Order: sequence, then structure tokens, then C-alpha cells
Amino acid sequence: MPEQSPLDLPEGDPFGPHNLPYGVFSLPGDDRRRVGVRLGSHVLDAGAAAHALGSPYASLLAQPTLNPLLAGGRQTWSDVRRALTAWVTVPAHREAVEPLFHALPDVTLHLPFEVADYVDFYASENHATNLGKLFRPDSPGLLPNWKHLPVGYHGRSGTVVVSGTDVVRPCGQRKAPSATEPSFGPSAKLDIEAEVGFVVGAPSALGTAVPLSSFRDHVFGLCLLNDWSARDIQPWEYVPLGPFIAKSFATSVSAWITPLEALDAARVAPPARDVQVLPYLDDSDEDEPGGFDLHITVALNGEVVSEPPFAGMYWTAAQMLSHMTVGGATLRTGDLYGSGTVSGTEPHQRGSLIELTWNGTEPLELPTGKRTFLEDGDEVTMTAWAPGPDGVRVGLGEVTGRIGPARTTT
Amino acid sequence: MPEQSPLDLPEGDPFGPHNLPYGVFSLPGDDRRRVGVRLGSHVLDAGAAAHALGSPYASLLAQPTLNPLLAGGRQTWSDVRRALTAWVTVPAHREAVEPLFHALPDVTLHLPFEVADYVDFYASENHATNLGKLFRPDSPGLLPNWKHLPVGYHGRSGTVVVSGTDVVRPCGQRKAPSATEPSFGPSAKLDIEAEVGFVVGAPSALGTAVPLSSFRDHVFGLCLLNDWSARDIQPWEYVPLGPFIAKSFATSVSAWITPLEALDAARVAPPARDVQVLPYLDDSDEDEPGGFDLHITVALNGEVVSEPPFAGMYWTAAQMLSHMTVGGATLRTGDLYGSGTVSGTEPHQRGSLIELTWNGTEPLELPTGKRTFLEDGDEVTMTAWAPGPDGVRVGLGEVTGRIGPARTTT
Repeated sequence: MPEQSPLDLPEGDPFGPHNLPYGVFSLPGDDRRRVGVRLGSHVLDAGAAAHALGSPYASLLAQPTLNPLLAGGRQTWSDVRRALTAWVTVPAHREAVEPLFHALPDVTLHLPFEVADYVDFYASENHATNLGKLFRPDSPGLLPNWKHLPVGYHGRSGTVVVSGTDVVRPCGQRKAPSATEPSFGPSAKLDIEAEVGFVVGAPSALGTAVPLSSFRDHVFGLCLLNDWSARDIQPWEYVPLGPFIAKSFATSVSAWITPLEALDAARVAPPARDVQVLPYLDDSDEDEPGGFDLHITVALNGEVVSEPPFAGMYWTAAQMLSHMTVGGATLRTGDLYGSGTVSGTEPHQRGSLIELTWNGTEPLELPTGKRTFLEDGDEVTMTAWAPGPDGVRVGLGEVTGRIGPARTTT
Repeated sequence: MPEQSPLDLPEGDPFGPHNLPYGVFSLPGDDRRRVGVRLGSHVLDAGAAAHALGSPYASLLAQPTLNPLLAGGRQTWSDVRRALTAWVTVPAHREAVEPLFHALPDVTLHLPFEVADYVDFYASENHATNLGKLFRPDSPGLLPNWKHLPVGYHGRSGTVVVSGTDVVRPCGQRKAPSATEPSFGPSAKLDIEAEVGFVVGAPSALGTAVPLSSFRDHVFGLCLLNDWSARDIQPWEYVPLGPFIAKSFATSVSAWITPLEALDAARVAPPARDVQVLPYLDDSDEDEPGGFDLHITVALNGEVVSEPPFAGMYWTAAQMLSHMTVGGATLRTGDLYGSGTVSGTEPHQRGSLIELTWNGTEPLELPTGKRTFLEDGDEVTMTAWAPGPDGVRVGLGEVTGRIGPARTTT
């Protein structure tokens, strides 16, 4: 029986021609990195296809990263996507493109773009309330600023890694409230944060704010993001300037960046806000609803432990962008910003172990044993889907990582 | 009278052959960026000199940024510096290099390296105590963690700008304690922070801590840094994840990076510490003293307003590096970390206006009028020197910036 063509997908495949996320891959025995476009369980060598078809986009696609494409801007993103759609759907191109596909298990996936600045927000009301209760038990869950601005901070771009990269358990200082001195050692409360990351394509000028309405002019697409966190290191270090060592050892992103245009059917209104925000954040008159109806699943060693709904996020990605630039900060090609942990209203919708186990007091019962925080060898995988056109789902690329033992213990 | 040779410097010039800081410049009518080395009030086109002298370092120096040199590592930095010293001191090279100098007023200076991650520390006990008293008047000045770890956070690499870049007054949210709602507008408390920035050259591997003793293997040199700050935006936004908009509109660095080797005579012991720190931060047995005896001067519209002494910093640059990587964060070529505001024990040694004017309650009396925080058109210039060999001073490149009016007011 001849092998099935990568172009002949089962009906309803979440990585069909309606999706076409971008990544970067290399082939066995050849270190050269190439822009790829996923179709089903194959990846198309997009630069090679552009060359084969004499496309004017070869200069954007025959590249080792997505950065040149990202820098192209909204019209270019749209044009390239239209071309790619034709390459994988128009029968006349079949002969040319079919040999340029590679099965996913045969390729190595790389970090798809060079990360410029990485910012992490805190946009889920449920998550912020839960963390507030856990970290500041004597105060109200939400701090007074939370509903007036999307709280965020800068993370470490240099430790953003692609899905599949092992995560070395971090060491650091922690101090129990009852202890008189801090101690040092491998984190005993290693956690996940299920997030969505937004990838900036088109830059902006220093000193110029980017309004809500320009979201699609600057943001190219999104990915899944796991912001690994050391919960025992964080409370001791984070006052007054925020998390540092607890959040800068690894941040994993999916290997596939889903373009915003693939998610047009997934746009939803954000939840009702109960506080009137300042004009630069007020999205009540925007043409397009600011939310994304992404259904995330978190699995620990293959067992589903959470199903966080992104549609319920209080702050939208456009609001985060507007706030991030309101003081005049530039956007650069490759900027990445995370939504913050996605947690729903229900216990099984919480996007971190500290919430799922209530800081370790309510362990998860898994086939592999009880879990509070992550143990060495544990593997966490996040997947997601969104509604697409004609009832077909749009799959997001998975983000996965396995915990390796700490390397230093002194 | 023939023009004096750039090679014939007045005795004791702080930018003599004992200094040789690196920068990047371009010439009028020619956008090409070139690595330059400062000698007196001239800059040597280092790549052109390497070519003219047949040096093997041409590939590192004939570049548009310092990044390739930075990536070279400690031995290379030493070798290149030795070669440069010969080029500007050995009479046999005079004829070849003399025509490759340009007078500083004739060139445009650029950001000398591509900034990877930017981290800002908070390493002055005096500054942290003053800010603590101002921002948290009901608590002790220093928080409990401050003497156990060098507190720091990630800033925005994309808004690091070279000395001379105008600073647009940022807009943002602020809320007075007495107000019920936040308001929006141009910052009314725009401030400076006089800092020293450390530039990482050689990278490190993910998951591997960099010990105190490896400081010189990774850090190439230092610069002056002004971490412009919006003091009215910061208190409202900074809980619980740290400063964000208040610190991400501009961070200015001097155009000249002083290599560590030029500062060998400036190494001093840090102040006595009154708390025993964990082993990875304990520098009591290090071969080399961790401090730098840098004498900073801050001028506002040409008037000296502060003289912060860097020698008094509680945490050293090596301790900051060790802490930054203890959780496994990589170092990348071009990483920049700031010391935090340098403030001495005396009032005239405070490195920020919020301290110098005690949050605006004690205005500075200047010839140009009273000043609490910065007004549009104000220019701030920081300079510094350090002791060099044989009693000659080592000059650091200035960092200067002028405040421009806010661009958005809604």
C-alpha cells in the first residue's frame, strides 16, 4: 500500500489547511534550520516550496528563524498565508510541494524565533485571586491595582526554550516563615504555569504608544507557554521588585506559532468587567472582540490534570499590548508576552499545581502516585484547540518538558 | 600651527593608553557602524587599524557592534587589548594608525552592543533604605531578604539607548493614596538613577551556575547607566510583580564600555557585611576584592547635584552575577546588568532625585530654578573616574540625556 500523501488529511484534522502554524526545523544530519509550516503530522519546508514555486516570498521563508517573516508586517503575513494555503490546497501545486514535506517524527523542532523582550502578565482573575490568597493570606486576594491595569513584569528572554527541552530543577534561596535564616538547595516546589504567549512581529517606535486598535498590526500570532516556577524561591525573593530566580531558569514555548488569522473564528468577548478602565485600556468600542476561545489541556505524565479555559481571561492580549507600550516602550520583532497562568473558575480549570493542590495541601491522586509539586522525571504537556471555520478545530502546538535533577546543591 | 596628533595626549589624560574603552561610531555621510577605541578626545577606527597593521583581530574589530569581541572571551579580550595598546604607543605604528583617528565631535556614537537580557539590581544599602522609607513608610527601610541576596529584576532590553538619546516623558497610570481612582497622564515625577552597568561577554550554559570566581571569565567591562524612572507610576503598578511601565521607557548607557582590565587599580574591598551569606555569595575568600572605586558625578543642566561613590555598594558585581545564574539562567553575549542606584551615606551622594529631594519635599536650589523632579528640557549628565595605574585617573564615558515632552496625554 503506498504511503498516504501529507496533502490528504483526514477530515477535521485540527492541523489542516485552515490552520498552517509556523515553526523552524532541521533534518537528521543537516544542521541547517528551515522555516516550516505544519500540515497534519507533517511539516512543509516553506523556503524550499517558495523556491520550487518561484514565489516572491522565498526571501522571507528560506530563513533559519521566523524573524524576517515576523518583521514583514500585517499585509505580508496575510499575503504569505494566502500563498501557503494555495500551495497545500491547489491540485496544480501538488507535484511540486509533495516531496517537500517531512514527517514530524523525522525532524528536530527549534525555537522558532529569536526572542527579543519577554514579558509575563497576570491576566486571569481566578489565578491572581488564588495566588493572592496563598502568598498574602492576610490580605484580599486581588490587590487594588489589579482591575485597573494588566499587571506584568519582564522575564528572561535568554531562558525561553522550545517545547521538548529538559528543565533542570533550579537551585536557590528559600526561607520558611518559621525559619530564622534562608537555606539553599534544589527547589522543592517546582511548578508549571499554563499560559498563552503572544509573538510580536512588527516593531513600534520609541516614545509612541500602541493603541488597542493596532493589535493586529503588531502581533503575528500565539503559542502555548509553560512558565516553569519555583514556588519556594519566589516568596522570599520577590519583594519589592518582583520574581527573579524563581522564574528565570526556563520558560517553554510550543514549537508552532499559530497566526492570528487562523483564529478568526475563535475571537470571543472577554468577561464583563466590573471596574471602568482608563481610555487606553477601554475596549468596549473595539470592532473585534478581544478574547480567544482557546481550550487548554494540561497533562502530567500523560494524565490530564487541568483544562484551563482561555476565554475567561479578564485582560485581553490587546489590552496587554496597549499597557506595555503606554509609557513609550518600543516593540521589537520577536517580543514575546505571556498571558499569565490561565485558571478558570472551577478547581479542575486551574493552570498551576500550586492552585490545583492548594500549595501542596491537597495532593493530586495520579496513577503514578500522589503529586503536590513536580518530581524529577515528571513530564508536563500542554495542548490546546480553538474553534475554527465550519466547525473544524484549530490545533495549537503542544508545549512539553521533562524535569531533570538539580545540578548544584551547595 | 599644525594640528596636534591624537597620539600626543596631555599627561594624565583620563582617556590615555591605560584606558582604551570601546564604542561604536559612524562618520558623517556614511551609515556604516565601526568599532572604535577612545584615546583622549579622539576615536580610533579599530577595524581599519587592524587591517592596516595586518592584525589577526580584524575579524573581531571590523564589525558594526562589539558583540563579536564580547563573545571572544577573556583571553581574547586580553590579547586584543595588548595589541591596541601597542598600536597607540609603539612609535613604529604611528604612521599607520594616526590617519585612522577621528575627533569625537565629528562622529556619531551608537549603542555599542546588542543588548540581550537587561537586569537591574538594587545593591546600595543607602538607596534601598531610602526608597524603603519613602515607599513603605510604615515598615523598616530594608526588607528581610535584602542582606541575604542581591535583589534584582529584569528590565526591558529594547529600551536601552545610547547616551545622547532624548528621553520622551512617559505617560502612565498613577494613584495618589488619597485618590479613589487612578488617573492617566505624563509622569510628574520623572527621575534619574545613577548606576553602573556590567556587560557580559562570554555566555554560559543553561542549567549551570556561574560562581563568584568566574566573574572575569564572563564580564567584559562596565559602563555608566541612567535608569530613568517615573516615581508616580511605580508605586501604583509595582505590587506584586515589580516595576514595569515606570522603568521601561528608557535606560541610557554610556557610549563607551570600559574593559575590566583598565580598572585593575580600582578594585577595592566592599564594605563590611553584617549578615553571613550563603556560600554561593560568600566572597570573603576571593582572590580579588569585589568592589570598584568609581567616583560618579551627576549634573543637572550643567550643575553638579550629586557625587555617588560606587566603592560603598553592599553587593558586588560578582555577587550579582553569581545570584543571577544560581537558578540555572544562561548568560548570553550582550547581557547587561545594572548595579541599582548608587547612593552614598551623605545627602549629596544620593543617586536619584527622589532621594536628593526626599520625594520632592526638599527641592534642589539650582541657578536654573528649584527642582524636585525633571522638567521638560532638563539635561542630566553622569560622568565618573576611577584610580588607574601610577596615579593617573581612568575616565568612564559620560551618559547624558535630555527630557522631551510627553507625546500622548489621553
